[in-house]
Amino acid sequence: MSAIEQYMRHCMCDSAHDTQHVYRVRSYAMSIAAHEQGVDLEILEAACLLHDIGRAEQYADPRADHAIIGAIKARAWLEANGYEFEFAQAVADCICTHRFRSDTPPKSLEAKILFDADKLDACGAMGMARTLFYKAHVCLPLYMLDDSGAVLDGTADSEDTFFREYKFKLEKLYGRFYTWRGEELAQGRRKAAKNFYEALFREARECHEMRDKGA
Amino acid sequence: MSAIEQYMRHCMCDSAHDTQHVYRVRSYAMSIAAHEQGVDLEILEAACLLHDIGRAEQYADPRADHAIIGAIKARAWLEANGYEFEFAQAVADCICTHRFRSDTPPKSLEAKILFDADKLDACGAMGMARTLFYKAHVCLPLYMLDDSGAVLDGTADSEDTFFREYKFKLEKLYGRFYTWRGEELAQGRRKAAKNFYEALFREARECHEMRDKGA
Repeated sequence: MSAIEQYMRHCMCDSAHDTQHVYRVRSYAMSIAAHEQGVDLEILEAACLLHDIGRAEQYADPRADHAIIGAIKARAWLEANGYEFEFAQAVADCICTHRFRSDTPPKSLEAKILFDADKLDACGAMGMARTLFYKAHVCLPLYMLDDSGAVLDGTADSEDTFFREYKFKLEKLYGRFYTWRGEELAQGRRKAAKNFYEALFREARECHEMRDKGA
Repeated sequence: MSAIEQYMRHCMCDSAHDTQHVYRVRSYAMSIAAHEQGVDLEILEAACLLHDIGRAEQYADPRADHAIIGAIKARAWLEANGYEFEFAQAVADCICTHRFRSDTPPKSLEAKILFDADKLDACGAMGMARTLFYKAHVCLPLYMLDDSGAVLDGTADSEDTFFREYKFKLEKLYGRFYTWRGEELAQGRRKAAKNFYEALFREARECHEMRDKGA
């Protein structure tokens, strides 16, 4: 295992953003890179491995942005471990712009590939599973009920429920890719996520309706 | 809100076994009871509301059985709050035997209905979502890799992964119901769980294969 991997493993802290997520992001990134010209694979691999090392700080203080903190930590660690300033800066730039919610779009080709690779792991059944991991980690519920006891679909939830996350983020992911290979892989997974959301909503709604009907 | 509900809410501690789970179990139980003769609805409702109040103790010490602890706590609370001994004992008996992994089968009709109602919430997409909540709560991964880096399907996992839970518990739930209404509701949800597991396994396997193929 490389020193970068060892450092990454030391920083990971929850099931939604575990080493398996990191290795999947690296696999997606390498698959996307194989369809692009002029990618610096060394920068890309380091950026993939280190992209979520700022998660623990964001859990400790939700106002903190794990992308910005991760970029600072990655640059510091790379420079302290003998990497050139330009390399460390390029890796940090990728990490800084990988966040879906950020207003700062990725600039370099490697940054765009990391963005797409990370988004891919929020698509499909995998994205649903990881979002459920995350919701449990921060103790948020699947859904909310309206005043009549009916299950809400997520579009009007006042709490940050799983259904809200699907409606406001996961459902909208598929049109926001920078690379065609990323978009191709994402589109192949869209239906699994939609099917799962719809099954879960149907089951929850039917259950709460049962009580009203008494049958 | 009744005093029993207030006590239940005071005891609940995680997303997989939250108040929404408790109210779904009550809805399922009332639906099953509407198709059975001679159910004591008061015993059944109290048993549904209180069936998971021993969860916190099991999280604190995994050797503890939340069904046994929940039964003891429920009987003590009911007796301390003016309920008859026979009522408290009947509720405790239901709670004591509601666990899928237990060797003690439910005896009374109310105990069988609680068992089925609780199992229903482990079926379908809801069962998958709640199991993911639970795995995150106890920090367990989705799957394991073999020595070649291929994703294992869960049948031979040495760790208690999500895939292992599906293969050893969730997939096998559907043939173990005591009431026909419970079995009918469960069968309607089987496909959603199977589809989700298969999509997740396919996505994880494809991702790890991508790396080997480099495309």
